[in-house]
Amino acid sequence: GKLLVVPMDGSHWFTMQSVVEKLILRGHEVVVVMPEVSWQLGKSLNCTVKTYSTSYTLEDLDREFMDFADAQWKAQVRSLFSLFLSSSNGFFNLFFSHCRSLFNDRKLVEYLKESSFDAVFLDPFDACGLIVAKYFSLPSVVFARGIACHYLEEGAQCPAPLSYVPRILLGFSDAMTFKERVRNHIMHLEEHLFCQYFSKNALEIASEILQTPVTAYDLYSHTSIWLLRTDFVLDYPKPVMPNMIFIGGINCHQGKPLPMEFEAYINASGEHGIVVFSLGSMVSEIPEKKAMAIADALGKIPQTVLWRYTGTRPSNLANNTILVKWLPQNDLLGHPMTRAFITHAGSHGVYESICNGVPMVMMPLFGDQMDNAKRMETKGAGVTLNVLEMTSEDLENALKAVINDKSYKENIMRLSSLHKDRPVEPLDLAVFWVEFVMRHKGAPHLRPAAHDLTWYQYHSLDVIGFLLAVVLTVAFITFKCCAYGYRKCLGKKGRVKKAHKSKTH
Amino acid sequence: GKLLVVPMDGSHWFTMQSVVEKLILRGHEVVVVMPEVSWQLGKSLNCTVKTYSTSYTLEDLDREFMDFADAQWKAQVRSLFSLFLSSSNGFFNLFFSHCRSLFNDRKLVEYLKESSFDAVFLDPFDACGLIVAKYFSLPSVVFARGIACHYLEEGAQCPAPLSYVPRILLGFSDAMTFKERVRNHIMHLEEHLFCQYFSKNALEIASEILQTPVTAYDLYSHTSIWLLRTDFVLDYPKPVMPNMIFIGGINCHQGKPLPMEFEAYINASGEHGIVVFSLGSMVSEIPEKKAMAIADALGKIPQTVLWRYTGTRPSNLANNTILVKWLPQNDLLGHPMTRAFITHAGSHGVYESICNGVPMVMMPLFGDQMDNAKRMETKGAGVTLNVLEMTSEDLENALKAVINDKSYKENIMRLSSLHKDRPVEPLDLAVFWVEFVMRHKGAPHLRPAAHDLTWYQYHSLDVIGFLLAVVLTVAFITFKCCAYGYRKCLGKKGRVKKAHKSKTH
Repeated sequence: GKLLVVPMDGSHWFTMQSVVEKLILRGHEVVVVMPEVSWQLGKSLNCTVKTYSTSYTLEDLDREFMDFADAQWKAQVRSLFSLFLSSSNGFFNLFFSHCRSLFNDRKLVEYLKESSFDAVFLDPFDACGLIVAKYFSLPSVVFARGIACHYLEEGAQCPAPLSYVPRILLGFSDAMTFKERVRNHIMHLEEHLFCQYFSKNALEIASEILQTPVTAYDLYSHTSIWLLRTDFVLDYPKPVMPNMIFIGGINCHQGKPLPMEFEAYINASGEHGIVVFSLGSMVSEIPEKKAMAIADALGKIPQTVLWRYTGTRPSNLANNTILVKWLPQNDLLGHPMTRAFITHAGSHGVYESICNGVPMVMMPLFGDQMDNAKRMETKGAGVTLNVLEMTSEDLENALKAVINDKSYKENIMRLSSLHKDRPVEPLDLAVFWVEFVMRHKGAPHLRPAAHDLTWYQYHSLDVIGFLLAVVLTVAFITFKCCAYGYRKCLGKKGRVKKAHKSKTH
Repeated sequence: GKLLVVPMDGSHWFTMQSVVEKLILRGHEVVVVMPEVSWQLGKSLNCTVKTYSTSYTLEDLDREFMDFADAQWKAQVRSLFSLFLSSSNGFFNLFFSHCRSLFNDRKLVEYLKESSFDAVFLDPFDACGLIVAKYFSLPSVVFARGIACHYLEEGAQCPAPLSYVPRILLGFSDAMTFKERVRNHIMHLEEHLFCQYFSKNALEIASEILQTPVTAYDLYSHTSIWLLRTDFVLDYPKPVMPNMIFIGGINCHQGKPLPMEFEAYINASGEHGIVVFSLGSMVSEIPEKKAMAIADALGKIPQTVLWRYTGTRPSNLANNTILVKWLPQNDLLGHPMTRAFITHAGSHGVYESICNGVPMVMMPLFGDQMDNAKRMETKGAGVTLNVLEMTSEDLENALKAVINDKSYKENIMRLSSLHKDRPVEPLDLAVFWVEFVMRHKGAPHLRPAAHDLTWYQYHSLDVIGFLLAVVLTVAFITFKCCAYGYRKCLGKKGRVKKAHKSKTH
């Protein structure tokens, strides 16, 4: 088949790329459309790549992201209102803007029009893929860890009872206290209030390109299949829809032999083994004071610590701590001598930890990281630290607990065995469903009729109103009849009494 | 692993048996527990079978079922109230009673207790398997087409918005009119009112055996995995839960060569081909007048009709119609010369029709048959007739439409290609999940936290009440303040006016 791919930059592309490569291997004709300026998208792909110029440079992108990343070190975003006010808006708006550049490239748009693709495979984060799917009326397969705001519930018409399904960013578990459930409802209100402003820029671009006013629902509800990097070993079980396919852990793969350098570190670590430490590809600089506190704590454990860090080297780095610009994270986590993983709890890292059965110390920073950390903590697979407030001692204690308390290892091993026990591997499942949508021009039989209802019909407010009216009317009539009957009876008794009185006087 | 199987008699056992046989083939130690008296359960099984005597004989069973089947020819059950009043109660209560016999067999109960099974694989229809699972505290895998009343929504805590998810027995589609949506709500109320009486007998037996008062929710909510014979080619897409696995079409299998007798019928049918006609294993007698009307219609089409019928031969049977006691339904439907399938729209038959791409004329009788028929009709794969009201002419026209109007064949072929395009075959998927539950002693990570909430917490009535109270209080205080301020201002103006007045006079 013929497939159009609209990816999203950054770590999102890591796993999506593995699906695209397998589809190319299986003989599909794949065209990837990407902005000229990007961090991760440029890497060689064995298929047609179409690029378009953007209104920003790589430096602009780096600068905006640095502002965004720095902001996360100042205050953790725990509400949409603060996210909306925070500096991340600049970063997101920059991201949304590249879609305008795509459609300004008339030659590219013509090329895409004439290519008669069977489907579009997209990352919805910056909405551009969604706009492309709607513009060319192509059946679409969404590839995502999760979907911002309430757009998944709306786009897929999927119920998410606020009583036990925590909203993103809150870091709540599925067993919420009354207070947390109230906060969860308020967050839901926030989503309905602020998300439209949050995606205002993207929706303006979409309306401009599609030449009609467009809501987020219009963009998302077009989706045939949702490939979600969810797995109920990590995420809390909740209602889902038949066109949602769960491919959490797609990034895990069989450990490859370690490069000599890392093999040597492990061999030198003796019986204590090693700890892997990485805050992910998106965080390259930690405030110095914080870095020193971390370095101090790392020096207090007997294990060798392999710390992936591209920032300035903390002056108090201990001998057991080795700084590296890059490390083969998955393969290191797969090594039997690895005792713990210090991570920002991004979903890729957490899944690799689950796949390899390594307990975690988690320092969530932004996005879904707080939620991932809470989930792993409630399942006993790690300890979460508030990276802003934590002291060196907190980190030291957390590390010692996770390494020495056997329950963490037992819990993560149990989660690992549940996670890897599945009928189909996530990568094969993802490839199957992209091909399914190409073969059948979508998956109309999985589209719920809820899409054809207004919100008050969906919630049956009209039916409930009608039934209430009927019940009240019947009650009212019954009451009136009884009252009338009662008065009638009372009236008779009154006359009998009077007759009786007049007789006895 | 060691697996206990608690099956249900009748057509339910056909497909469950295929899963049990495959598990035996894969080396699991399987023990099937069944009543001595049964229609279908007796067949040779290559594993340990433990039987127990029952308080009823096969004749009792036949008689009760005949009453039940005859009743369906008198009036189609379209509400739980009528089902509750109808004669089927006797049949169902007879069914529920065999569980008491099982637990009265002390030797059998001891044997089961000492066998330390890894899981129980059960059909929930007569609740006995559910009682066994709870009694021996075994993780359980439910195997069913659907679950009566609202017990699936409750047992699995799965939302089913009444605005587009039709309740069983109504024969509605997922695009309901306002009136139908009102009826759907009323049916939901009926379920909550009558189902408890409907399963009163079963719950009494359960409470007796478990020596504690037991509700339907107590029995159903214990389930680890729900293997449901649902497929969204047949059923309307709706919210589902992660521990629901869909194995609709598990009964379809590669067509085997036809017995000579049937090969001959087909060869003799010439270019017109054949029509297969069967009202399923549970219906052996059709009222004579109705049978003659059917025979009359069958005589008016050029195709050869193979009619599986064990009742008295209608006197007006035409030459093109051949009565047989049994026919290889699936293999016949798989033959290219088969033009149409007349069926009561039981799910086994409908799935075989979908698998083999044969359009249908449907005469639903009871249970989920009306709903199956409606679904196929709305998807353009067949025509539904009300078997009680239909005339010979109706049947004739329906047959000619389904055979001659190409759209029916196109629609059923499209559904067939969607249905058979899946990453894992239903039988393999069923076997995988039974083994999963055995390996992991259940699937606790798929159990939603909703089970730990009361119904008003689940629906957030407490939170909504609290937020409303807060809003009203704030509104009230604001109103009072404004009113106070207003009075204050007004009071001042009043004094100024008075002062002004006294000056001007």
